[in-house]
Amino acid sequence: MKELKSLERLIDSFAKLPSVGRKSAERMAYAILDMSEDDAQEFSEAILGVKTKIHKCHICGMFTEDEICEFCSDSSRNEKTILVVSSSKDVIAFEKMGKYSGKYHVLGGVLSSTQGISADKLNISSLISRIEEEKIEEVILATNPTIEGETTALYIAKLLESKNIMISRLAYGLPMGGHLDYADSLTLNKALEGRRKV
Amino acid sequence: MKELKSLERLIDSFAKLPSVGRKSAERMAYAILDMSEDDAQEFSEAILGVKTKIHKCHICGMFTEDEICEFCSDSSRNEKTILVVSSSKDVIAFEKMGKYSGKYHVLGGVLSSTQGISADKLNISSLISRIEEEKIEEVILATNPTIEGETTALYIAKLLESKNIMISRLAYGLPMGGHLDYADSLTLNKALEGRRKV
Repeated sequence: MKELKSLERLIDSFAKLPSVGRKSAERMAYAILDMSEDDAQEFSEAILGVKTKIHKCHICGMFTEDEICEFCSDSSRNEKTILVVSSSKDVIAFEKMGKYSGKYHVLGGVLSSTQGISADKLNISSLISRIEEEKIEEVILATNPTIEGETTALYIAKLLESKNIMISRLAYGLPMGGHLDYADSLTLNKALEGRRKV
Repeated sequence: MKELKSLERLIDSFAKLPSVGRKSAERMAYAILDMSEDDAQEFSEAILGVKTKIHKCHICGMFTEDEICEFCSDSSRNEKTILVVSSSKDVIAFEKMGKYSGKYHVLGGVLSSTQGISADKLNISSLISRIEEEKIEEVILATNPTIEGETTALYIAKLLESKNIMISRLAYGLPMGGHLDYADSLTLNKALEGRRKV
């Protein structure tokens, strides 16, 4: 069958999205065809909109539409604690949880030798200067519990060793509501190691 | 947390796609944020591209970038048989299968009282005139085996009753590679009714 070039082009774009396979990308492209002109126009503009309006906060690296993000500009937050995450999405996860009221710092990725992401490509030097300038007392390393996330957390912990601040890492263990027999042995091991007196 | 308006707007657009929930739409919108400028630009243009370049074939209603689609303009195909489907996607499914070499006719939907789709909203009158003008000998009704698809097929069969042509419907039965114990009882019943001597 002859290809519809404009459709193939759109399928290619959809297929670049995370966890969208060829089949789903096709279904989405057809949905665009079935959409009203207005909806498609809106969709197209919305894509350009996020790229032009959203950028990184000059202080912490979090996505924002303003110069400085809402967390950095909020003086009611605990200004002595920084929670370090790899991406802006993680900030949103913490905000949804709603129990953290300190500041954030977004690395913009994790160290990865396979993907060629070295320390200078991450938002690390600005973290160091923030710690000094803002007289930070605690840094919570909240990268993902993956090999890359761990490596990144350890790397930053090492860098901050000489500074007289508290450095902590999120707890490992069983996810709430999970079942023991579904937990992988690494998680189970961490849960055992991290056991606490009740 | 304060909303990023441009991001919310994009999430709304993604959430309009089929089988994309709020959570997936968020993940996709973030992926756009992480994309290069060029990829985002390309994505945005590709959406407008399909809406401006693709339209319905004047004869059969199939999506095409030309005036007349590749199937209608292909004189090597069997011109006496029309396979009637509800959407252009179904044509593509038949072409992938590769065993059908007749013409197509795309209804652009199915009769649905709940969604208010009546016969005049479907591409049916053009089917009737094609049958006369093109001296069609067989019409294969290939709408989906759903209540709406059945209703639509029966409605068209009724309309064509008086014409001296063969009208057929796709066979029902067990899907290939399927397991009997997974088949619903309606399908099983159809498979039993349609049994053939071996």
